[in-house]
Amino acid sequence: MTATESTDVMRLALAGKPASHRPVWLMRQAGRYLPEYRDIRSRAGSFLTLLKTPELAAKVTLQPLSRFDLDAAILFSDILTIPDALGLELDFAPGEGPWFRHPIENPGDLARMDREFPDARLDYVPATIERIRRELPRNKPLIGFSGSPWTLACYMIGQGRAREFGDACRWLYTSPESLNELLLLLAEHIANYLIRQIEAGVDIVMLFDSWGGLLPASRYREFSLGPASVVLERIRTYQPEIPSIFFARGAGSRLEWLRDLPARCLGLDSAVPLGQARACLSGSHVLQGNLDPSALYGSTENIRAEVCRMLNEMKEESGYIVNLGHGIPPDVDCEKVGFLIDSVHEESSQRSKHRC
Amino acid sequence: MTATESTDVMRLALAGKPASHRPVWLMRQAGRYLPEYRDIRSRAGSFLTLLKTPELAAKVTLQPLSRFDLDAAILFSDILTIPDALGLELDFAPGEGPWFRHPIENPGDLARMDREFPDARLDYVPATIERIRRELPRNKPLIGFSGSPWTLACYMIGQGRAREFGDACRWLYTSPESLNELLLLLAEHIANYLIRQIEAGVDIVMLFDSWGGLLPASRYREFSLGPASVVLERIRTYQPEIPSIFFARGAGSRLEWLRDLPARCLGLDSAVPLGQARACLSGSHVLQGNLDPSALYGSTENIRAEVCRMLNEMKEESGYIVNLGHGIPPDVDCEKVGFLIDSVHEESSQRSKHRC
Repeated sequence: MTATESTDVMRLALAGKPASHRPVWLMRQAGRYLPEYRDIRSRAGSFLTLLKTPELAAKVTLQPLSRFDLDAAILFSDILTIPDALGLELDFAPGEGPWFRHPIENPGDLARMDREFPDARLDYVPATIERIRRELPRNKPLIGFSGSPWTLACYMIGQGRAREFGDACRWLYTSPESLNELLLLLAEHIANYLIRQIEAGVDIVMLFDSWGGLLPASRYREFSLGPASVVLERIRTYQPEIPSIFFARGAGSRLEWLRDLPARCLGLDSAVPLGQARACLSGSHVLQGNLDPSALYGSTENIRAEVCRMLNEMKEESGYIVNLGHGIPPDVDCEKVGFLIDSVHEESSQRSKHRC
Repeated sequence: MTATESTDVMRLALAGKPASHRPVWLMRQAGRYLPEYRDIRSRAGSFLTLLKTPELAAKVTLQPLSRFDLDAAILFSDILTIPDALGLELDFAPGEGPWFRHPIENPGDLARMDREFPDARLDYVPATIERIRRELPRNKPLIGFSGSPWTLACYMIGQGRAREFGDACRWLYTSPESLNELLLLLAEHIANYLIRQIEAGVDIVMLFDSWGGLLPASRYREFSLGPASVVLERIRTYQPEIPSIFFARGAGSRLEWLRDLPARCLGLDSAVPLGQARACLSGSHVLQGNLDPSALYGSTENIRAEVCRMLNEMKEESGYIVNLGHGIPPDVDCEKVGFLIDSVHEESSQRSKHRC
């Protein structure tokens, strides 16, 4: 780690230390709302080409940092790279989101699955990270990531997204042992994958449990938090100084079950009352997120008001990271995104508790 | 009210009184999982014809009660009948769910909207209720319902369901006054509509806040609970002995904000830990629901185990109503549904605390 800690507000926040201002980065900050992204995306031809061409993926990762004063970069990639590399073949149906050409149709398919970590088929990821790291200023940490085991399984089983991932949810009752076997296999792969990302140069890792909210309360700990903890523990053992973030989308009323999760930071969606999350989790985790992405459609006055509301709510917390509760919508005005980032910096640097 | 209270376990539960067994009914109990439903549905030609033909809608309402020992009937209808009657014209795209042919595109469209309650265009609903009431045994209460104001607005604005109701969510920030105006207008219509259902013979009313979970925490009370309370208060004033149920889907970590909601009963989705809901809400509301619909794909042993888990969790509660956390999936085996209902009765009648 060669970053100058004193100027890296993101890692200070992750360490629970006060800094000159609150760090801010935004999920999907490299994305369609940026004209320069749309330009490179249309020249690439497809999202998958963009994703798998290190030169292009690195360029896209850096785009929002050229335009805005963001406190972290996040690798331009997809949460579903591992199952793609396992041969399920990722594709994107226009307006429908990601799906796999060769999903797992039944528990028997698991036996036929290659158990080896598909290292070579993911070479484009460390290659992208190395390129980014060469150009990214040292005081801007780079976040690597993957989908969580449960979230990968949601897309991998049956018809994936169709009927709200009904096929994966059915396995909870029809094939819980096979589902567990799949989740533990994925946990191993994800840990290997994130370690490879760390070796290539990422400073922080994030696990997106985007569909944990679909699990009934009675199955959330076993099928979401359990396999995710396996990943997070392996990262912590491998390199304790690399902070991890768990995006607990849809955690809802299960917040207290997150207290023991071996992650440094918890990403919150917009549905959770920030004050309640703080009351429940600030002793155990640094918190991140929560601003409603739709707030970016509002006026600049409203955006500033939302920022102030969040900063005031979190004013006693030394380690809060500002982010949205979900990705930036593709049709927001990028001027508003810039305004949001600047507002976070201005408003938080004025709040004396957090001055250096 | 002519029902014999002593044998009506559903209304005993809603009054918080112990009964011989726990009542059970299931969201979408009249639906595609039943062969007799599919038969009548295919002869009707379209879902809308079925919905709007009192003879057929009444027949479909009664079907599950002929087959199973359910403790309540629920009107076969749709949550979106009011906007349909307002001229938005409900339609169903195969596999895509409901949408409106003439949605509200912008706040200006509101000014052009007819403010009158579209009484005549909803005549098919009381006509259906009267038919059902003639055939339904008096000890089986009939539940009438509507979508909540926020849930109706979600479908009515812009592209509705597309991008997770992104257009309605945008109005939270771009046109909050217009959104509030729409929600209050809908609250009036919904109250009138439910009162008409009560006059025609329903014994219980239910408000489906199916999309309350999409609201960010900072807007949930204002845009979901506020207008819903207007409806619930009007029902309570109109006829205090008619119990109301609020289906708080996606309430998640906002459970404590439901404590003051003027409903007799709260319907819970499957994501909420039942014990936590009980700890938070049992002093203020009777609770209903929570069983994961996907549990119906499991074995009968597993279904019984789920039932026991829920009944044990709620054993101290005099007024709990067993239900799913969401509608019955169309592809479950109807034998399993019967097994679930019988298990609830058997297991709960054995739990002595709740014997008469």
